[in-house]
Amino acid sequence: MAGTIEARIKALDLVLPEAKPAIGTYVPFVHANGQLLISGQLPMKEGAVTLTGALGQDASLEAAEEAARLCALNILAQAKSALGDLDRIVQLLRLNGFVSSLPGFANHPKVINGASDLMVRILGDKGRHTRIAVGCSSLPLNATVEIDAIFAVD
Amino acid sequence: MAGTIEARIKALDLVLPEAKPAIGTYVPFVHANGQLLISGQLPMKEGAVTLTGALGQDASLEAAEEAARLCALNILAQAKSALGDLDRIVQLLRLNGFVSSLPGFANHPKVINGASDLMVRILGDKGRHTRIAVGCSSLPLNATVEIDAIFAVD
Amino acid sequence: MAGTIEARIKALDLVLPEAKPAIGTYVPFVHANGQLLISGQLPMKEGAVTLTGALGQDASLEAAEEAARLCALNILAQAKSALGDLDRIVQLLRLNGFVSSLPGFANHPKVINGASDLMVRILGDKGRHTRIAVGCSSLPLNATVEIDAIFAVD
Repeated sequence: MAGTIEARIKALDLVLPEAKPAIGTYVPFVHANGQLLISGQLPMKEGAVTLTGALGQDASLEAAEEAARLCALNILAQAKSALGDLDRIVQLLRLNGFVSSLPGFANHPKVINGASDLMVRILGDKGRHTRIAVGCSSLPLNATVEIDAIFAVD
Repeated sequence: MAGTIEARIKALDLVLPEAKPAIGTYVPFVHANGQLLISGQLPMKEGAVTLTGALGQDASLEAAEEAARLCALNILAQAKSALGDLDRIVQLLRLNGFVSSLPGFANHPKVINGASDLMVRILGDKGRHTRIAVGCSSLPLNATVEIDAIFAVD
Repeated sequence: MAGTIEARIKALDLVLPEAKPAIGTYVPFVHANGQLLISGQLPMKEGAVTLTGALGQDASLEAAEEAARLCALNILAQAKSALGDLDRIVQLLRLNGFVSSLPGFANHPKVINGASDLMVRILGDKGRHTRIAVGCSSLPLNATVEIDAIFAVD
């Protein structure tokens, strides 16, 4: 019954992107002792960041939520690359969500929910995770969102 | 001898608060493979954040240390909710401390010591943990402090 | 064959510094269940931070990369203090890189590469790690860089 998770991704009309190369001398994932650690993923699509800049107090949140969803898909792309089959995911343990934002911005949870919601829709109970959501003064490539992940895997 | 840690909390004239619900589509804790991961906790009390805004260079630190203490109590409340008995804690492995602060602020260690001190007072040697303390441009609900934790548990 | 990694550090004309004490009521490392967690390390040398302040959009990056290298050496100093012999490192699992920076700064990966490159040069394939690189509004002691680490150890 391999491929159940990928079938669900298709049923949701989503496409698992290609795993992105690391931007530096690190690796996108390490699999050790039943844990799969994924490096911070940006909202990259076709070689470019889809949303840049810091969110202010009255920022419109839809685009940032969409960027967080893209980070989540890029995390799953790395997991597929590491595991071969996403059905080997036992549990998403953690998402660390970083939002480029100005002083006074307060809606980090709503932005990172873009990623959290998607993980639960795709992975079901295995996608129910702990997380942090915090504000950064800036992020690599001027991206608005960066998210990393830890999975328990078999 | 269950309840030793809770007895120490009472002896310190502290009250273990109710575990707070997640602010989004994640869960407050995940217990897997001997580790208990706790999501980022804010200085929430009776449904509201007790301290908001970013600390400047000459900020008074007492209120921020107190907010960090409240984050630590909220972490222990989640651990109690997850484990039933806080005596199942083997070791506090990590606190990640995030302080909403302006450029030039340098006293993150003193702020997060509010949480670190309390963990050692309550848990003794089992409370001696690694940590980071960093400055954020903003935090959820405009909170001044957010702290997450990883415990080793039996 | 103990001391292989330390011999490589010498061959690279580098010196493993003394392990720095914690700046607060935490501990520099915890070793539990095959993992060694290292607290956030600053670019400390002879009791002082070597580089302070936030990086702007047109910051010169050489000094910040050098500060990241010093954080990496301070991480290895803690690992030596914890393990006795750096050859007990099985794998560097994770570096979390925090760069004090102003809005619009985008070169976090280049800064943190100072640490990532050094880990791979010293540890070889065992130094190939996952990582995050994010921007902070400020850091302890006004440092420009802070990096923490997780190792798998035997």
